[in-house]
Amino acid sequence: MEIEQKVINTLRKLSLEQIMTAKSGHPGVALGAAPIMFALYNNANICPKKPDWFNRDRIIISCGHASSLIYSTLHLFGYNVSIDDLKQFRQLGSYTPGHPEETVTSGVDCSTGALGQGFANAVGFAIAENFLSEKTKKYQKIVDHYTFVMCGDGDLMEGISYEAAAMAGNLKLNKLIALYDSNDISLDGKLSLSSNEDVQKRFEACGWQVLFVKDANQWKNVNKAIIKAKQSTDKPTLIICKTVIGYGSKLAGSEKCHGKPFSDEDVAQMCASLGVSDVPFKIDEDVLLWQKNVSNKGEIEEQKWQQKVEQLKENNKELYNEIFAPKFNINKTLNEIKFKEALATRDAGKTVLNKLANTVPNLIGGSADLVGATKTYIDNSSYYSATNRIGRNIAFGVREHSMAAIANGIALHKGLKPFVSTFLVFSDYCRYAIRMSALMNLPVLYIWTHDSLAVGEDGATHQPIEQLESLRLIPNHCVIRPADAEETKGAYKIAMQENCPVSVVLSRQTLPILKSSSANNVEYGGYVISEEQNPKNLELILIATGSEVSLCINVQKELEKQGHSVRVVSMPCKELFFKQDKTYQNKVLPKKCVKRISVEAGVTSGWAKIVGDNGVAIGVNQFGESGKGQEVMELFGFDVKNIVKIAKKLLK
Amino acid sequence: MEIEQKVINTLRKLSLEQIMTAKSGHPGVALGAAPIMFALYNNANICPKKPDWFNRDRIIISCGHASSLIYSTLHLFGYNVSIDDLKQFRQLGSYTPGHPEETVTSGVDCSTGALGQGFANAVGFAIAENFLSEKTKKYQKIVDHYTFVMCGDGDLMEGISYEAAAMAGNLKLNKLIALYDSNDISLDGKLSLSSNEDVQKRFEACGWQVLFVKDANQWKNVNKAIIKAKQSTDKPTLIICKTVIGYGSKLAGSEKCHGKPFSDEDVAQMCASLGVSDVPFKIDEDVLLWQKNVSNKGEIEEQKWQQKVEQLKENNKELYNEIFAPKFNINKTLNEIKFKEALATRDAGKTVLNKLANTVPNLIGGSADLVGATKTYIDNSSYYSATNRIGRNIAFGVREHSMAAIANGIALHKGLKPFVSTFLVFSDYCRYAIRMSALMNLPVLYIWTHDSLAVGEDGATHQPIEQLESLRLIPNHCVIRPADAEETKGAYKIAMQENCPVSVVLSRQTLPILKSSSANNVEYGGYVISEEQNPKNLELILIATGSEVSLCINVQKELEKQGHSVRVVSMPCKELFFKQDKTYQNKVLPKKCVKRISVEAGVTSGWAKIVGDNGVAIGVNQFGESGKGQEVMELFGFDVKNIVKIAKKLLK
Repeated sequence: MEIEQKVINTLRKLSLEQIMTAKSGHPGVALGAAPIMFALYNNANICPKKPDWFNRDRIIISCGHASSLIYSTLHLFGYNVSIDDLKQFRQLGSYTPGHPEETVTSGVDCSTGALGQGFANAVGFAIAENFLSEKTKKYQKIVDHYTFVMCGDGDLMEGISYEAAAMAGNLKLNKLIALYDSNDISLDGKLSLSSNEDVQKRFEACGWQVLFVKDANQWKNVNKAIIKAKQSTDKPTLIICKTVIGYGSKLAGSEKCHGKPFSDEDVAQMCASLGVSDVPFKIDEDVLLWQKNVSNKGEIEEQKWQQKVEQLKENNKELYNEIFAPKFNINKTLNEIKFKEALATRDAGKTVLNKLANTVPNLIGGSADLVGATKTYIDNSSYYSATNRIGRNIAFGVREHSMAAIANGIALHKGLKPFVSTFLVFSDYCRYAIRMSALMNLPVLYIWTHDSLAVGEDGATHQPIEQLESLRLIPNHCVIRPADAEETKGAYKIAMQENCPVSVVLSRQTLPILKSSSANNVEYGGYVISEEQNPKNLELILIATGSEVSLCINVQKELEKQGHSVRVVSMPCKELFFKQDKTYQNKVLPKKCVKRISVEAGVTSGWAKIVGDNGVAIGVNQFGESGKGQEVMELFGFDVKNIVKIAKKLLK
Repeated sequence: MEIEQKVINTLRKLSLEQIMTAKSGHPGVALGAAPIMFALYNNANICPKKPDWFNRDRIIISCGHASSLIYSTLHLFGYNVSIDDLKQFRQLGSYTPGHPEETVTSGVDCSTGALGQGFANAVGFAIAENFLSEKTKKYQKIVDHYTFVMCGDGDLMEGISYEAAAMAGNLKLNKLIALYDSNDISLDGKLSLSSNEDVQKRFEACGWQVLFVKDANQWKNVNKAIIKAKQSTDKPTLIICKTVIGYGSKLAGSEKCHGKPFSDEDVAQMCASLGVSDVPFKIDEDVLLWQKNVSNKGEIEEQKWQQKVEQLKENNKELYNEIFAPKFNINKTLNEIKFKEALATRDAGKTVLNKLANTVPNLIGGSADLVGATKTYIDNSSYYSATNRIGRNIAFGVREHSMAAIANGIALHKGLKPFVSTFLVFSDYCRYAIRMSALMNLPVLYIWTHDSLAVGEDGATHQPIEQLESLRLIPNHCVIRPADAEETKGAYKIAMQENCPVSVVLSRQTLPILKSSSANNVEYGGYVISEEQNPKNLELILIATGSEVSLCINVQKELEKQGHSVRVVSMPCKELFFKQDKTYQNKVLPKKCVKRISVEAGVTSGWAKIVGDNGVAIGVNQFGESGKGQEVMELFGFDVKNIVKIAKKLLK
């Protein structure tokens, strides 16, 4: 047996042993895809001792349930994953969690597990590489690498993978190489039960080169295909690798080996048939020797690259900083923006985004075919395309889900700050990808416009009701709904600073500039935007977000006219407000004032904590209606008269 | 000009006039796609005077922004949409809302607006037709019709349309005909900006017949293609119709005519060039005459069909009832199920679903390639497939989003009750389609298993945190998380009764059968599952759902041992609890007992309303961890010791 084959069989053995030790995991893909994984890591330009090397080839394993195989591979290729780590597979607090986590294991380029996401993330990596490569081409291409993604049948059945593939083909991302572990088995049985498509034709239709490896169990066949794929000049490549799920085991070829540990006998039989030791986690001497050699892989390339970077630092410090130490004086930029006239916060957002784009050359993004409505086009740039690699506007097409996942890939790559946009109601299409932004601490800027019932005529399918609160439920994610243009500035400031995804939620309709609104106060999440007339006798607090803040100020005026002492609090970001110390929170919402009314054109369920047992949450807990924006708002009670009435009842 | 052409031009004129009157709408598609729409309605087997005729061809306009064109078409074909209705286009409370709503306008088979949904819904309609057609084939095929769907570039860019197309091709749904309004323009400009794929090849790859109509502005070309498509015996058909966006107007061929009203001059120019009156809403005499004739369309077919139905009623009352008057004695079935031993609620669900399937022959559904894990296979049936049209198990593949949308289509068709399933965390992929179930009052049964951190080893990507509460935010949607097998029965009972989507949320791990758990009490949403020892001095109420109910009963035992009087409330469905009268609510959660603790392994934000200002919500507001289920639960504080500690602090 040649040493490479023995390494592959050792990958299989180690993967299965992790699963046996954990009594949990997915043997099928680990045994079947081991030759693909070997060919991939063998071929890739990586440096196991410097797993975060900026110019490494990126490797995304979209079928994250192959995690045991990933860890075995990282171990044998000399990454910082030890045999003890493998023994801790899937255990609490281990370095080797059940699905690969980019934030946990160095060497893992992307957290995966939910199918299809990784494939779309890879398109984001490839865009980032391509853009930065173009940007640095005068400097020996500081960024110049391939993006590899391994995927399975499940990934390719997901709509998100189709969306992302169509994008990649249109953009001619020739340095994107997808390895498709095709074993004709899915969890519920034969793939033909649910899928019978001609994958080759499908990808060709999307502008890809497709290579076919009939026997991917022979790693050299995969290797040959990878070498060919690298030569593509104008198309991304899909390599269809025919493999056998559970190869080497008695259950090979059956869905029964997908997701459960084997019996001890099955393991012993497999090790024997593969010619590797069946002593758990014991690695044969020849493989250990191979490991010792391979662990130096890429060190010379990495050093050469470091020299290039040093040169760049000398020749163009600005560009160097842009990519490797991005710090931009956005405060100055933001302070220069002065808003005077009433305008929709989406229009304010347009101004802010464009000013920021001048200061932050790394800002790149776009919309799901709604840039004219979300107003997120960077005016002094152009569309990124197959013929214009330096455009900072990305036309994602009507593909919300992959748009968000591609943004995750761009953010993961590093060197760029991605933003994406569509209508708030369509955030539903992106939802799992937003979750992944949050799970990986990715500073993706989400811009959601058309933020309420006030959308009007487009009706119930276009009017967000539950989306705002629903986005707030995603952990590690800031949702900011500014009350006016001034607060919009503050929202973008947060978005540029936080190490997590930030959603900026903007109105379609015009909103007045409020007297005491403050960009700087947005960082506190909530603040008093209109003081009560008589601080000694604060009777009622109105708390609102977005377009409902100006409404509440009008309510306040009416109530004060009638002799009541009423405060208005603008609460653009609940998450940030609850992060403030209790003293601050109590200053804004004094405990003694229990008469509180929240006003937000969305579901009320999240407001109980703020208004308390004696308060009232005004919102809308049913779907919207088609009609003029203002009329729809009034129909659902968002007008001065109705709120004054509710307030007076509460004040009695 | 032949009369058909004049009718088409009148459709254009009426559509544009609606938009002009509303000062809002989408002229581009209405003008461009009018010939397609005409050919479609002209060809379809419909009965305008009986728009709900069960055996009509179904027509789904996936590009819902073509609403003005739909209403014009309904008007001219003699449906119950008047000129006055057209004048009220997009106005509050009108019969002609901004996007088509199935619940508002008779003649509209499906609410659409969010792109891609309608296309996937159509696949559901086609499955329902095909299944019922097979079922009634001994009775002159009581169900025997085509399903038409019109879609645009936006629909086809959405991943959901790819998923649904792959399903339809695999299932060989030959009576599904999609008309693709291909005008090479999307909202942001030329389609090639974001898409360059070979749509024909893509659909062929998915097993479709593709027909190409080079000049779809000539309705006869479209008509010819429809006739050909109807002859397909083994493939669904995509008809690519090349049209000109905004045809007839000065802005023809440009994205500028997509989404805004025209100037008055533009309208006059268009009417002149199309040879129709420019007096608003005036219809020329010859067209009125044509309208009078066409409005009788389908009456004879409908009457013939009624006779067939009468025969069925005589010959097979049971089958007749099944399809047209489905009422099944599920209470008897459910009462017969006795659970004795502890088991996972997903396993209890399996038993209940299977028993129900015996009583309810209309129950049909499946899973997104997780049927082995969600346990939702109907054992005494088989897989629905191209060769087995009577199987009640649908293998959706790893296609969650289209799965939910296809279920919507099945429910909309009527005659079948659909269920779908996957892991709770992946409900994120289905989210917009769930919203559409709710918006259209569709009784889709969603079965979500693996419902918490207790999933364990699969880690953060597989552990739902925010999903449970997030699903609750969708209006008109019941979310039920049963505490044990007994409550699981109750959950399914609700799911079979409600006229809205119901989500049943089930555990992966084993749960004890609780002493006082009650299937019947589930309908109250919440009830006292374990009374306090000393009712005169109720000190604390523990409120929980799902697996946390048994945990709370153990906490109660410990606290009562220490002399405290503690009640446990099981709250499987908050929505239903809040629908009960105040007396009942107060009986379960007496106002005077303000010391309350909620325990649920998910985000806490929705619990404030129930625990109140003096209560504590125990939950998890960050992402999960990979590890053994029990250990992960304990890490996040879901164990007796921790909750007792929190309770004692509260009791001080």
